[in-house]
Amino acid sequence: MSVLVVGSAALDSIETPFGKADDVLGGSAIYFSSAASYFTNVNVVAVVGEDFPLQDIQYLKKRNVDMSGLCVERGKTFRWGGKYDFDVNDRTTLYTHLNVFENFNPTIPENLKDVPYVFLANIQPELQLKVLNQMNKPKLVVMDTMNFWIEGRPDALRDVLKFIDILIINDSEARLLAQEANLFKAAPIIRKMGPRTLVIKKGEHGAMLITNGSYFWAPAYPLEELYDPTGAGDTFAGGFVGYLAKSDDISSANLRKAVIYGSTLASFCVERFSVERLKNLTEPEIESRYQEFKELTIFE
Amino acid sequence: MSVLVVGSAALDSIETPFGKADDVLGGSAIYFSSAASYFTNVNVVAVVGEDFPLQDIQYLKKRNVDMSGLCVERGKTFRWGGKYDFDVNDRTTLYTHLNVFENFNPTIPENLKDVPYVFLANIQPELQLKVLNQMNKPKLVVMDTMNFWIEGRPDALRDVLKFIDILIINDSEARLLAQEANLFKAAPIIRKMGPRTLVIKKGEHGAMLITNGSYFWAPAYPLEELYDPTGAGDTFAGGFVGYLAKSDDISSANLRKAVIYGSTLASFCVERFSVERLKNLTEPEIESRYQEFKELTIFE
Repeated sequence: MSVLVVGSAALDSIETPFGKADDVLGGSAIYFSSAASYFTNVNVVAVVGEDFPLQDIQYLKKRNVDMSGLCVERGKTFRWGGKYDFDVNDRTTLYTHLNVFENFNPTIPENLKDVPYVFLANIQPELQLKVLNQMNKPKLVVMDTMNFWIEGRPDALRDVLKFIDILIINDSEARLLAQEANLFKAAPIIRKMGPRTLVIKKGEHGAMLITNGSYFWAPAYPLEELYDPTGAGDTFAGGFVGYLAKSDDISSANLRKAVIYGSTLASFCVERFSVERLKNLTEPEIESRYQEFKELTIFE
Repeated sequence: MSVLVVGSAALDSIETPFGKADDVLGGSAIYFSSAASYFTNVNVVAVVGEDFPLQDIQYLKKRNVDMSGLCVERGKTFRWGGKYDFDVNDRTTLYTHLNVFENFNPTIPENLKDVPYVFLANIQPELQLKVLNQMNKPKLVVMDTMNFWIEGRPDALRDVLKFIDILIINDSEARLLAQEANLFKAAPIIRKMGPRTLVIKKGEHGAMLITNGSYFWAPAYPLEELYDPTGAGDTFAGGFVGYLAKSDDISSANLRKAVIYGSTLASFCVERFSVERLKNLTEPEIESRYQEFKELTIFE
């Protein structure tokens, strides 16, 4: 099955303790499709400016990522600048220039309205709902959001959550959304808002999958260096949704595997700047790391 | 195989959002033996004052805990008062009255010098070394410590660490001991100090076992309420060492099982005040929760 992602395409400038990168590929739709395309066909709906280096995403086209929904608008591409300290959980946004992304108004091309697996990356909840209203009953809708919308657009967020199957958020966002500090209490509160399944990302502590009364605890890969954490969340989502779409199986057991594929792709993502590490992965590399994740938690 | 624990016996006064308990059983040796005695014979070396309610530890004697190393000294028992907020990771010590524990000078009775499994609970490192010097080549020495000794007695701590097989500490202590924020970098630094194996406790994020180049990632039990977190670490150690001694198997695979038994016992501990929940567990209860831990992390 194929996947549709609606999100951002950006040019990021990143400083980490390991170096600097200027105007490199970024944005949720780019990271997501870089990961998901290892599993299945991906269709991107996003907007870029005239300055976007289209040649830099040739690697995606070679992996059957359909870019026909990528609009090139007059103006500049969305730009983000950020800096990470040695504690990579601590990130400072240096600037956010929305540019053409400010008026992003996603229109789903006719030929994509039947795509069965949909990922709504972190954009304004009103736009997420607008995307869903254009789709013909997708089989699975997965969504991301952030504290900015949880605090700033609570009503619109509640409106779209009603139509979501799986919500992927981080632990602090889950606490904020549920207004509850204990994650095991927060989860049922969020599930009542719509999404039957939650994936709560906990950074260096791994991720948790919460379905009906069942918890799955996924480890994080033991990385001595996080070269650049930018995009890890969208890469996780790409591995997760990409694997689900490929297997076309949303059973509880398969959701667990999807979480590990998401974690696997994210663990590669942070090993280099931008999407560098996601450009040339091989299937054996992915499978071998998947096995490493298994060895992290197995016991008799 | 039997176990020797050298640690504290205390009377704790605890306030949590769920209630209050005054002068209840506490101390590392009490929590440890309450847990370890589900697996094997335990010998306690500790000191109490004349006011210690010996009748309250009858439940331990019934479970073959040998208390012949428990000295009753003139004076009062070690007392600790603490308060937990809704965020149970945030604990305030209201008072610490060392009382007879101030002059604790552990002497190992002749008949205990050959006990093969030794747990050195969190006491002054000089005393931990003194205990080891009295023992006849134990098969396995497991140790706990805390930031107070890491900062206050660094040299004495290094001296004893040389003779330790397994060090159990929490994540912030590991960072402090290694002077390194990244746990995967901190671990090899600590292992060079002596202990070939580390267990790093991460509270609500579970625990990590680090042996020679191999990581094991244990989940935390999904608890909606932590009634009283006091003693969870010593209870973990009790389940961990108790299971190892019972099986007399310190292979990598069995260490993993031991971490889960430790986590299992600790998950019971925090469900009630003091050692209440550890008094009357049944084997089926323990085994059933062990299985729940397995279901938390299993995937194909």
